[in-house]
Amino acid sequence: MEKLQKLEKLYEGKAKKLYKTDVENVLWVEYLNQATAGNGVKKEQIEGKGRLNNKITAAIFEELNYRGISSHFIKSISENEQLVRAMKMFPLEIIMRNVAAGSFAKRYGLEEGTKLSHPVLEYCLKDDSLADPFINDDDLTAMNLVTREQLDIISAKTREINKVLSDMFAQCDVLLVDFKIEMGETADGVILLADEITPDTCRLWNLRNGENGQIEHLDKDLFRRDLGSIIPAYEDILERITKLNAKHSQL
Amino acid sequence: MEKLQKLEKLYEGKAKKLYKTDVENVLWVEYLNQATAGNGVKKEQIEGKGRLNNKITAAIFEELNYRGISSHFIKSISENEQLVRAMKMFPLEIIMRNVAAGSFAKRYGLEEGTKLSHPVLEYCLKDDSLADPFINDDDLTAMNLVTREQLDIISAKTREINKVLSDMFAQCDVLLVDFKIEMGETADGVILLADEITPDTCRLWNLRNGENGQIEHLDKDLFRRDLGSIIPAYEDILERITKLNAKHSQL
Repeated sequence: MEKLQKLEKLYEGKAKKLYKTDVENVLWVEYLNQATAGNGVKKEQIEGKGRLNNKITAAIFEELNYRGISSHFIKSISENEQLVRAMKMFPLEIIMRNVAAGSFAKRYGLEEGTKLSHPVLEYCLKDDSLADPFINDDDLTAMNLVTREQLDIISAKTREINKVLSDMFAQCDVLLVDFKIEMGETADGVILLADEITPDTCRLWNLRNGENGQIEHLDKDLFRRDLGSIIPAYEDILERITKLNAKHSQL
Repeated sequence: MEKLQKLEKLYEGKAKKLYKTDVENVLWVEYLNQATAGNGVKKEQIEGKGRLNNKITAAIFEELNYRGISSHFIKSISENEQLVRAMKMFPLEIIMRNVAAGSFAKRYGLEEGTKLSHPVLEYCLKDDSLADPFINDDDLTAMNLVTREQLDIISAKTREINKVLSDMFAQCDVLLVDFKIEMGETADGVILLADEITPDTCRLWNLRNGENGQIEHLDKDLFRRDLGSIIPAYEDILERITKLNAKHSQL
């Protein structure tokens, strides 16, 4: 195979750039060192973040794929770049929560760490100019942003991803508190997991060394709340997921 | 029947006071002249408002009852007082929208008046200290605030109420843009419409004299947006509903 060519930039987000390639329906993703919080109000360059997130999301997508969950991920091509399938993205932030934390805990007056009686699925409309507002199923279909049938598939797949991802993290002593994903539709009409799964987009609490009862964040809350460098935590997550990968990488 | 006794105050809200009575499961409601907006930030006494809302909600509940929709309403007992059934209330503001307006239009960047492709049902958690936050079905059941079965009934009944109420208002040349209701459960476990249905809790746009294309508000937006006195508009709504009542009041 000839070397694939990176073509014009399609999109620049807060944490990634997306480029077209000379292969149909294949995009080139570059992970950036930029960290943002509060819809971009807090912003910083953190050396090593792009590399770590590229590796972590690749390792997680590979692990999910092994466990039967497909995604847009094709392969890593450099320290901070990967190839993914191009899709028609839904304008949704798809959020699953297992434990009350962050904006959810604040919104409903719950203490962070409150266990929910079942996992919760929420959607936000992906629109920076509106600050990604919370939205429900009826709102989404009434504004023709997604069909009822698409929502049923998105919901079922997200709940399944939550089960597999929670198990996967539990196996490396991490509690998956909540996470945000995105999905899109392929040219064939298949709805697939897309975007990234990293400590930027998950709340991950360490289940090792937890004797003092303090929550040890292994995620972007370290940055959001000025609790210390994210780099050692992200390195730790990468190492734990890589060990899981190793169990079947020779198959 | 001996005269029913008003006993101690149970609750004082922004627009009504609720009292116990000496009859089991019967409450005494007093409608107040107080008008509030923005979760109580804007507040005013408006002479005649309590009387009008007491009469309007009574007329609407009577009209709904005639059309097959039960509610907590028993009967009016004075100009600004009525008797209702006591119920175990759900901590929900139940909102139906037929046309984008108010907070919904703002939240999703839509022009006020945008027709939705189907009516939209939304819930807010009734909690002043949290400013009544938007909440979805999963959130509600995960926090054990309501069961999935109760939500199914609440949803079905609310959609039915929207149909009947929209028809009823259309028959008096009023567009029902959106409304907020509350529901509760009787001691027998029946889920019933409760609280009030008034121009305080509905957006009502006049369909008469609309030749200049301007929206003519017959509801609390007059107060919220400083567009003029609410009293003539509320009088107008009362008169129109009373005319509907008259068609079957002799039956």
